[in-house]
Amino acid sequence: MRRGKPATHIQFGEATALLAGDLLAIEAFNVIAGSGAPPEVCGRAVTALASASGARGMIYGQELDLRNEKRTPTEAGLLETLSYKTGALIRVSAALGVIGAGLEMEDEAEIEHYAQNIGLVFQIVDDLLDVTSTAETLGKPIGSDAEQGKTTFVTMFGMTRSRQQVADLTAEAIEELGDKYGERADFLCEYARRLADRVN
Amino acid sequence: MRRGKPATHIQFGEATALLAGDLLAIEAFNVIAGSGAPPEVCGRAVTALASASGARGMIYGQELDLRNEKRTPTEAGLLETLSYKTGALIRVSAALGVIGAGLEMEDEAEIEHYAQNIGLVFQIVDDLLDVTSTAETLGKPIGSDAEQGKTTFVTMFGMTRSRQQVADLTAEAIEELGDKYGERADFLCEYARRLADRVN
Repeated sequence: MRRGKPATHIQFGEATALLAGDLLAIEAFNVIAGSGAPPEVCGRAVTALASASGARGMIYGQELDLRNEKRTPTEAGLLETLSYKTGALIRVSAALGVIGAGLEMEDEAEIEHYAQNIGLVFQIVDDLLDVTSTAETLGKPIGSDAEQGKTTFVTMFGMTRSRQQVADLTAEAIEELGDKYGERADFLCEYARRLADRVN
Repeated sequence: MRRGKPATHIQFGEATALLAGDLLAIEAFNVIAGSGAPPEVCGRAVTALASASGARGMIYGQELDLRNEKRTPTEAGLLETLSYKTGALIRVSAALGVIGAGLEMEDEAEIEHYAQNIGLVFQIVDDLLDVTSTAETLGKPIGSDAEQGKTTFVTMFGMTRSRQQVADLTAEAIEELGDKYGERADFLCEYARRLADRVN
């Protein structure tokens, strides 16, 4: 179940679900190329997305995740896995906004740092909700991490420290953007706050 | 077995094999963006590749192929499946050469027609060899189509007509390119000949 509906592989079969995933990864490049942005901007965006998705990004993170199933990761190993598995794609989502707006590389680095922080928050919140929420609220099964004996932020650091991390990372993300961009960062700061509020 | 070695999913497991496939599809865009070609050329190449791989290309062909397993396709259905499943990627491979060389759209259409023909030849040859070759020569199991009750060019049209198609499509591909490009097309004409020679 996802968002209260059967997952794609249940509804349409594994083969079609795999093809749908491949399709979405490819169509993202189609969207960039057909965006009407200047060719230089499109090129920078294609490079950023391909890099964050591939062997130095999400796919590398997924492979690390597979290895973690066979051997319990260290703290550093867990953080590395998360940084690639979900972090890389969240960072590039933020970077693509910077690239599309024609801003500088310096802005790209700062907004990627914001995204790095809220990416971690997203993951910790997901781990916390898997323990504390109900399937009805989340729209997907809960307790699945524990059932699979999976190492998560919560199993490694405990509930208290995980909640503290959510608060600290969110505060850092908001403070850094607010200091530099003022009101222009309101949307992104509010976004970070709401993400953290899911476990408050 | 592929090329005399265990297939990726046998050697490394299904999950890693899937990730490797996803990775290669994504890295292709990285190669284009990092090629150093002018941004306009890169943009045209990204669009061509994404279009040929996605919902109007290879992935659509794979989905048609899945449906054919449940219901024997008509002749038109089989040709449509092949045109997308392997044809689209072979056509775009040829088109990318045209785009990279900075040639015109008219050339793109002509060389895509050549690629359309040799793409079909490739598929028919593959179907013929599955019946007539040995696993040792091919480096992969033979007879797998028949075993799976799969509809192929050979089961639909028979050996004689399939061989004739190989000859006709190859002759057409060579003639068209030779007429227009003369000696400049020697490599591509030779390539088409050798592909057909695998079943002679």
